[in-house]
Amino acid sequence: MRSFELKNRTQVDEIKKLRLITAIKTPYLPDGRFDLEAYDSLVNIQIVNGVEGVIVGGTTGEGQLMSWDEHIMLIGHTVNCFGDAIKVIGNTGSNSTREAIHATEQGFAVGMHAALHINPYYGKTSHEGLMLHFRSVLSMGPTIIYNVPGRTGQDIPPSVIKKLAESPNFAGVKECVGNDRVNEYTDNGMVVWSGNDDQCHDARWNYGARGVISVTSNLVPGLMHNLIFDGKDEALNKMLLPLMDWLFCEPNPIALNTALAQLGVIRPIFRLPYAHLPTEKRMQFCNIVRNIGRKNFIGNSDVQVLDDEDFILLGRY
Amino acid sequence: MRSFELKNRTQVDEIKKLRLITAIKTPYLPDGRFDLEAYDSLVNIQIVNGVEGVIVGGTTGEGQLMSWDEHIMLIGHTVNCFGDAIKVIGNTGSNSTREAIHATEQGFAVGMHAALHINPYYGKTSHEGLMLHFRSVLSMGPTIIYNVPGRTGQDIPPSVIKKLAESPNFAGVKECVGNDRVNEYTDNGMVVWSGNDDQCHDARWNYGARGVISVTSNLVPGLMHNLIFDGKDEALNKMLLPLMDWLFCEPNPIALNTALAQLGVIRPIFRLPYAHLPTEKRMQFCNIVRNIGRKNFIGNSDVQVLDDEDFILLGRY
Amino acid sequence: MRSFELKNRTQVDEIKKLRLITAIKTPYLPDGRFDLEAYDSLVNIQIVNGVEGVIVGGTTGEGQLMSWDEHIMLIGHTVNCFGDAIKVIGNTGSNSTREAIHATEQGFAVGMHAALHINPYYGKTSHEGLMLHFRSVLSMGPTIIYNVPGRTGQDIPPSVIKKLAESPNFAGVKECVGNDRVNEYTDNGMVVWSGNDDQCHDARWNYGARGVISVTSNLVPGLMHNLIFDGKDEALNKMLLPLMDWLFCEPNPIALNTALAQLGVIRPIFRLPYAHLPTEKRMQFCNIVRNIGRKNFIGNSDVQVLDDEDFILLGRY
Amino acid sequence: MRSFELKNRTQVDEIKKLRLITAIKTPYLPDGRFDLEAYDSLVNIQIVNGVEGVIVGGTTGEGQLMSWDEHIMLIGHTVNCFGDAIKVIGNTGSNSTREAIHATEQGFAVGMHAALHINPYYGKTSHEGLMLHFRSVLSMGPTIIYNVPGRTGQDIPPSVIKKLAESPNFAGVKECVGNDRVNEYTDNGMVVWSGNDDQCHDARWNYGARGVISVTSNLVPGLMHNLIFDGKDEALNKMLLPLMDWLFCEPNPIALNTALAQLGVIRPIFRLPYAHLPTEKRMQFCNIVRNIGRKNFIGNSDVQVLDDEDFILLGRY
Repeated sequence: MRSFELKNRTQVDEIKKLRLITAIKTPYLPDGRFDLEAYDSLVNIQIVNGVEGVIVGGTTGEGQLMSWDEHIMLIGHTVNCFGDAIKVIGNTGSNSTREAIHATEQGFAVGMHAALHINPYYGKTSHEGLMLHFRSVLSMGPTIIYNVPGRTGQDIPPSVIKKLAESPNFAGVKECVGNDRVNEYTDNGMVVWSGNDDQCHDARWNYGARGVISVTSNLVPGLMHNLIFDGKDEALNKMLLPLMDWLFCEPNPIALNTALAQLGVIRPIFRLPYAHLPTEKRMQFCNIVRNIGRKNFIGNSDVQVLDDEDFILLGRY
Repeated sequence: MRSFELKNRTQVDEIKKLRLITAIKTPYLPDGRFDLEAYDSLVNIQIVNGVEGVIVGGTTGEGQLMSWDEHIMLIGHTVNCFGDAIKVIGNTGSNSTREAIHATEQGFAVGMHAALHINPYYGKTSHEGLMLHFRSVLSMGPTIIYNVPGRTGQDIPPSVIKKLAESPNFAGVKECVGNDRVNEYTDNGMVVWSGNDDQCHDARWNYGARGVISVTSNLVPGLMHNLIFDGKDEALNKMLLPLMDWLFCEPNPIALNTALAQLGVIRPIFRLPYAHLPTEKRMQFCNIVRNIGRKNFIGNSDVQVLDDEDFILLGRY
Repeated sequence: MRSFELKNRTQVDEIKKLRLITAIKTPYLPDGRFDLEAYDSLVNIQIVNGVEGVIVGGTTGEGQLMSWDEHIMLIGHTVNCFGDAIKVIGNTGSNSTREAIHATEQGFAVGMHAALHINPYYGKTSHEGLMLHFRSVLSMGPTIIYNVPGRTGQDIPPSVIKKLAESPNFAGVKECVGNDRVNEYTDNGMVVWSGNDDQCHDARWNYGARGVISVTSNLVPGLMHNLIFDGKDEALNKMLLPLMDWLFCEPNPIALNTALAQLGVIRPIFRLPYAHLPTEKRMQFCNIVRNIGRKNFIGNSDVQVLDDEDFILLGRY
Repeated sequence: MRSFELKNRTQVDEIKKLRLITAIKTPYLPDGRFDLEAYDSLVNIQIVNGVEGVIVGGTTGEGQLMSWDEHIMLIGHTVNCFGDAIKVIGNTGSNSTREAIHATEQGFAVGMHAALHINPYYGKTSHEGLMLHFRSVLSMGPTIIYNVPGRTGQDIPPSVIKKLAESPNFAGVKECVGNDRVNEYTDNGMVVWSGNDDQCHDARWNYGARGVISVTSNLVPGLMHNLIFDGKDEALNKMLLPLMDWLFCEPNPIALNTALAQLGVIRPIFRLPYAHLPTEKRMQFCNIVRNIGRKNFIGNSDVQVLDDEDFILLGRY
């Protein structure tokens, strides 16, 4: 019996097949630590609704607000509790190559099935630097590359992606630039997940995307499953668009966090610099829930507007 | 389905039943990082030989030389790869209550079955402080308390242990003070593991100890299994004593590390302040292996004396 | 004698007066640790040439590639060695409010004169979140706010800056959006430093900027001093523009790092994801040095093209 | 001007001359962070009373309960605020050679005048390992070696000390084994500081010790100054012995922390595993203060017994 057998390493092909992946929210306790009980419940709802993978500690899960030891712990925890039922994709990317290497080694060591890697945001680098950065982690296991210039300040151009795609560990791209870019990749046989919920229906059914890495599926995993698995459905897509627009009225995950608290599935606790949406926006969400139907959203209690005083915003934790 | 069911929390009774637990060695790569492939092989040999539990990052495993993120990663890795076949007991103790709390939370979150806790070495504290320290972690899951005054500079007195034993998570004591102390506890129905290999046969068969948390079993897991499972065997115990004496000729794990390198199952790499034994001691080990029989030791290659130059001692890593 | 007297807290007015501040480069040893001897030499050259302040661990100094303990150590070191001769401004900003709070507390505790704070890049947040983020650190001491949407993915709008400016600790803005924005602030009596070397001459002499936080001054501190202190000088500005353009041909500090190595004042060592410029660009730099005059650049040895093999790129350190 | 001149490195001879060094207490805020204002006040009182050096983050200062970044910050802070008036000796020792190397480099980088180094407690090692451990840090700057087998579980034998003494950076030994051991070293011309307050008078005046590294001087710096500077004084020594005995009735710094709170100079906040002394002991302290004279103790308010509820014990911070 050899090490890699024991570890049950995931094949890259298993990652390529995933159609619906949720960038899962990380809920908090009043002192700012992870609320693992609420987290486990959120992940379990995803599994029950047919979601095939979760991104742990993505931007939605606020990996940028975690210490690395918290982050790796959460990956290990998710593998330990749910690794048999859902693919665990750790966001072990960083703008520091050192940190990306260290976190990715640790993430695979604790059993994650794949890594999500971002280009070096804020610091940025040359195309040569991008190649060196990604290559230093690609050897470790199945990898999804994430392109979101609106956050990173730098587009990963197709020329770089195409070179990275030669690696046997390259699973595909999470692409936020738009469906023309999606198409450019799928025409070349590459696996692409849309990173924009409002474009994912068209990406999947018109532009060859494999599926979506979704924020919206945190709230309505069943409807997102329909949207991605059940064939073209303009009516469903149209019904979901107001929710998607609302979710991105401020930088994600501000609206998502607010919505989950309003649905009663997480405590209304924010790690700064995130803060809850104002009352008016929260009332809009109640209307959206009514229009789409409460039963399509996760949780069992009535959706609430909540008061501003209900929210706890933490700087130290 | 609720969180604690998903987590498959280990019952404290399952920990209490364990008879043979190995304080497993952590092997290193030339740059000082963990050699996970060699580690996996060592753990696997333990399983194959019937060892029931491993202490991850104990003093033998050099937890004192790990950063906490390395330490938690190794616990999570061990759970992920071997948690179905062997109990994983994380040494998440510390002389800092803050660190013990944080590490123990993280260790249970990544799936360890039990925690090993030491009293605050070096800093030391009052009996009142001991109680507060241990109580701050006992609520988290099954716990073994470790008493080794030769390392900590402070004995945990029976009065403290007896109060801790009232906790439902208290699994038992790893006791190094001697078999009279063992007896004092077992007479009261407490579970005790001997922390001294050279006393463990008597502890088990004459003083009511449940078993041993062993260093020697890293080298001869099959013989230690015989010693602990197969009834009183003075001859076997006598045969093993020269090996046990040799293993503790310098502070553990100096000799163990040297022996594993001589047996060819780990790279001859030390994290300082540990350094290999001198040639003469290494030659003694070769004789011991010959006397006990190579086949009773782990690994397949001939035992070697090695040259001083073969050893790499790392200060920075 | 009271604590705040002992600490000799810098008055915000002393920060507001600074005209020439260098975003100082952090040089490395072959194992990736800081080369403090080279660093001390670089800072000393800045002082000798009349530079009034340094940003420690800015994006130029690669704070994004430092662990926080390295970062705070470098701030404390700079204060300890040079705090009497130059203002030490620590880049203790972060996209995590927790980290910004912790680092800023520590930076002021080890004696930095002011903090530089960025808006939460990559993660981004709402305007409400921006206010909460900055307010959680503004109380600690003199603060410069840094706006560079090309890196952060999000502009700090004047409406937010104007509210922050009400704080007594607000020293001013490092602004990269352009001179119209500079003008908007200076018309309101706010202190602004240009964050774009190629616009700083005009910013200073036509748009009321106090001065510049400069990358170029790492190389030609004397000429930058002339540009900022000696009155409008279109000829000098024009002479420097090819150097400035070259310095930003790739994301900073790629070209700066390459140039300093070519000038022989630092070892040719990069922390990834940064990598040296290709030969052609290095040859261009030699020409630029020739045109502007070797004596105007720091260092004493001849400028060299260097070979690709001379450069060391480090992922692990 | 070269780096080492800028850094004003302390000569080892300046360290050797120090007679009265205080192992300074670290006070806390209610959330467990350092109370720097109270700390600055404590250090200032030491300076005013003629104390020549402070150990920052020693066992008395609870370095064992600090994260390394807190620890280095406190060293840098002390240098920055008081480095001109008192020698700052950072306890950058560790049972992990890696940590000792890293912390010592950082401590000297932020300006500490000397390092205090302990042998690897708890983990322990061979004499060969001791030599390798200490030699890996001795090259960095003036160093005091600290021997306290009651905490470390292992005596540093004279044979090891004598070899270390050949290093030009070796300043001397803080010795807790007793005055015979002190004498053995001073007979050989070595500098020794007594680590036992109750033996320091005799060590200084009968056994050739240079002075003391004191806990008691936190409370009565003036009297300790008299004891060490003003010649043999059996009466003073006898007067102080009840205080010294009381201070070590439980592992230090339990009693010291309690006393400082009773004197009103720090908040009554403990980081676990330390907890305040019980009421009876606190009443004893009031009597001791009365007997020695309130004016000889630091602080201005009346000594108080305090209630148990006044004390805050922190596990998470």
